[in-house]
Amino acid sequence: MEAKDWKFRANPVLKAASVFSIARAIGDVKANLDPCDQRLVIPLSVGDPSIFPCFRTAQVAEDAVIDALRSANFNGYAPKSGILQAKRSLAGYLSYNLPYKLSPDDVYVTVGAKQAIEVVLTALRRPDANILLPKPGYPAYEALSVINHLEVRHFDLLQEKNWEVDLNGIQKLADDKTVAMVIINPGNPCGNVFTRDHLEKIAETAKKLGILVIADEAYGHLTFGSNQFMPMGMFGNIAPVLTIGSLSKRWMVPGWRIGWIARSDPDGIFEEQGIVECIKRSLIVNTEAATFIQAALPQILENTTEDFFLKTINILRKDADMCYEWLKEIPCFTCLQKPQGSLFLMVKLDLSRLQDINDDFDFCSKLAKEESVILLPGSVLRMKNWEANGVTELITYVMD
Amino acid sequence: MEAKDWKFRANPVLKAASVFSIARAIGDVKANLDPCDQRLVIPLSVGDPSIFPCFRTAQVAEDAVIDALRSANFNGYAPKSGILQAKRSLAGYLSYNLPYKLSPDDVYVTVGAKQAIEVVLTALRRPDANILLPKPGYPAYEALSVINHLEVRHFDLLQEKNWEVDLNGIQKLADDKTVAMVIINPGNPCGNVFTRDHLEKIAETAKKLGILVIADEAYGHLTFGSNQFMPMGMFGNIAPVLTIGSLSKRWMVPGWRIGWIARSDPDGIFEEQGIVECIKRSLIVNTEAATFIQAALPQILENTTEDFFLKTINILRKDADMCYEWLKEIPCFTCLQKPQGSLFLMVKLDLSRLQDINDDFDFCSKLAKEESVILLPGSVLRMKNWEANGVTELITYVMD
Repeated sequence: MEAKDWKFRANPVLKAASVFSIARAIGDVKANLDPCDQRLVIPLSVGDPSIFPCFRTAQVAEDAVIDALRSANFNGYAPKSGILQAKRSLAGYLSYNLPYKLSPDDVYVTVGAKQAIEVVLTALRRPDANILLPKPGYPAYEALSVINHLEVRHFDLLQEKNWEVDLNGIQKLADDKTVAMVIINPGNPCGNVFTRDHLEKIAETAKKLGILVIADEAYGHLTFGSNQFMPMGMFGNIAPVLTIGSLSKRWMVPGWRIGWIARSDPDGIFEEQGIVECIKRSLIVNTEAATFIQAALPQILENTTEDFFLKTINILRKDADMCYEWLKEIPCFTCLQKPQGSLFLMVKLDLSRLQDINDDFDFCSKLAKEESVILLPGSVLRMKNWEANGVTELITYVMD
Repeated sequence: MEAKDWKFRANPVLKAASVFSIARAIGDVKANLDPCDQRLVIPLSVGDPSIFPCFRTAQVAEDAVIDALRSANFNGYAPKSGILQAKRSLAGYLSYNLPYKLSPDDVYVTVGAKQAIEVVLTALRRPDANILLPKPGYPAYEALSVINHLEVRHFDLLQEKNWEVDLNGIQKLADDKTVAMVIINPGNPCGNVFTRDHLEKIAETAKKLGILVIADEAYGHLTFGSNQFMPMGMFGNIAPVLTIGSLSKRWMVPGWRIGWIARSDPDGIFEEQGIVECIKRSLIVNTEAATFIQAALPQILENTTEDFFLKTINILRKDADMCYEWLKEIPCFTCLQKPQGSLFLMVKLDLSRLQDINDDFDFCSKLAKEESVILLPGSVLRMKNWEANGVTELITYVMD
C-alpha cells in the first residue's frame, strides 16, 4: 500500500496549539548546551520546585496519601467532580478571606490546574467567542484556547505599574463575543502580587463588560513581599469568578496532579447562564484525579503546619532578594520591581548593550552554549527579548 | 446587571457529548430506588471491580506506589509522554505475543485509558473526518468524538457470531474521510473475546480501507473462556494499530488513573503520516498521570505474580458461569453466549413476555424501584431494549 493511500493525517490545529509550550522552548534552548562543557548546568528555567531538596513536601501530606492508599478504600473511580471529603475540605480551605463560605458543590477536583483550565475553557467554548489573556502570561491558556477554538485577545500587564492589568486597554479589546478574562495572581511569570484595590477594579471592569473572571491562583499564598495574597473570589459579588488552583506549588508536589476549580458567585449567575451544568458535563468527558490522592486532601489541607509554609516563603524571599540584587549588576538586564510572589521574575534585555545577539532566543541559546545557564526566552510568552527567571534557583524570562 | 447582559453561555456541544454517559444512565436508573425499601441494593451496574473486597489489588503494586512516593524523587512534573522507566517497562509488558518488540518510544503514559482515548481522537481530528465505532460499545468514544468534531459511524457487532465485527457492513460505512475504526477486545460490554483469525481479518479490512485500528485493550488478559487474549498489535504489519490500555481492570485500581497508548506499526506509517508528532502535541496540551504512580510501573508490571491474576480469573469465570445459568431461568432474557472476558455481558430483553414495560430504560427503572436491583439500560450503548450486566456481581446491559 502506498503512503498516500492511508487516509489518516495529522490534526493541523494541534500544531498551532503546541507552539505555546514552555517545555518545547526549554528543549530548544537546551539543545544548544555544549556536551563537552564539564560545568554543571544551571537551570534557571525550572518551574518545578520539587526537584530541589530544600523544597520537599510536608511529611503530613506524604503520610496522608499513604494512609489513603493503604486503606484500600480509594482504589476505585471517583465521582466526576471529585470525592465529597475532598470537595468539603477544599471548600473550607478556599473560603479563606472570602466574605461568604464556599460549599462543597462550589468546588470541583481536577487533574492539576492544567486540567482545570481545560475544563473551564471547554465549558466556555461557543462559536466566535473570544477570551482575554494577559501578556505576559501562562502559555497553556493560549494552547487550550486554540484547541477549543476560542479567539485569543491579549491585554497588557503594565511593567511600570508593577504588572497591573491595563484596565483601559482591556475595555478596548472586548466586544459582545468576549466571554471571560484571565488573571494570574500571584503572577506567573512576572512575580507580582495584585492589591485588593486592583482586584476590585478588575471585578468592576469584568462586570462592565459582562464577562467572568478566571482567576488562576496556582501560586496562591506564595508571597514574600509587601502585598499579601488576596483571592479574587472576594469580589464574586461584583462579577462571577472561577478560581483555578492546585496543590502543586504551595505543597511542592506538581507530580501529584491535584488541582481544583472553585465558583465564587454568590448571586448564582453561573447557574443562570448554564455554566454550572456545562462544567459538570466538561468533567464527564474528562478524566479524574487519582482517587487516593483526593482522599488525602482533608489531612493535607487541614494538618499542614505554618512552619512548613514559612520555611518555603523564607527561602523564596531570600532567593528573590539575591536574584534582584545580582540582576542589577548585569548591564544588559532591567528588572524594575523585586518579585513579591510566585516562583518567577521577568527581566528586560537591552540588545544595544550586546554584540551579535539578534533576540531573546538567540541570547538564551548562546548563554546555554557558552555558560551552561538556561533561561527562558520571553518570546514563548509573546514578550520578545524578555526572559523569565525562576526565583527558586530561578526562572528568568528575558524580553526587550 | 440583568442576566441577559452577561455574555458567557453554555457550550452546546458539551450537552450533545455528555448524553453518552454510563454514569448519567446509572444515576437515572438509581433515581427510581425506593428509599423505604430495607433490602440491600444489588448493583449489577458496577464497572469498578475495586469496590468488592475479593478484588483488592496486589500487595506488590501497593508497595511499589508507596516506595516511589517515600523516595521523594517523583513529586515533580513528568515528561509529557511519561517517565522513561515507566515507558520502558510498559514496552516490555506490551510486547507480549507480538512478532516484534516495542521500544519505550512506542509507548505513552496517560491518565487512565480515558485520557488515552482523548489524546488519540484529538490527534486524528480533521475537518469532515469520520470514525467507525462498534455498536454496542463504550460511550466515551461517542462523547469524545463529538467533542473532537469527528463524525461517528457505527458498525455492528454480530450477536450470532459471538459479537464479531460485521466486516462486510464496515466496508459499506467507510468512505474517503474515514480515518480509524475502534475495536474493544476483550469486549466491553459484550464479554466476548476475538480470535486471532478475526483480528487478522480486522487488520486486512482496515488496510483495504486505508484506516488505522484503535484497539481498546482495557480488559486485556481478563479472559476466562476458550478464546485466549491476543493483542491487536500482532497485526500492526498489516494495518497500523494504536493500542489503548490501563492498569485499572487487570490490577483492580481504576482510581490510580494510569493508562497508556502503544504504537504497533513496524512499517513506520504513523511517523510518515504525521501521527506520531500529533500524539506528542496532543499530550503537550493535556496533563500527565501522577509521577510517583508512573514510577511504580516497573515493579507493578514485572513483579505481580501469576497467582494474583489467576485468583481474579477464577472469580470472574465462576461469576460468569453462575450468571449465565441464572439468566437461562429468566424467560424474558436471552444471552446467546456465555461471556469469555472483560467484566460484562449483554442480555436481550423480550418485551412480549412482560406487561407494562415500554423499553429497556422502563424495565431497569421498575426493577430498581421494585427489587432494588440495578441493571444498565442498553440504550445508553445505542442498543435499545438490551441490558448490560457486570459479571463481577455483575453489570448486565439489557436490549431487545
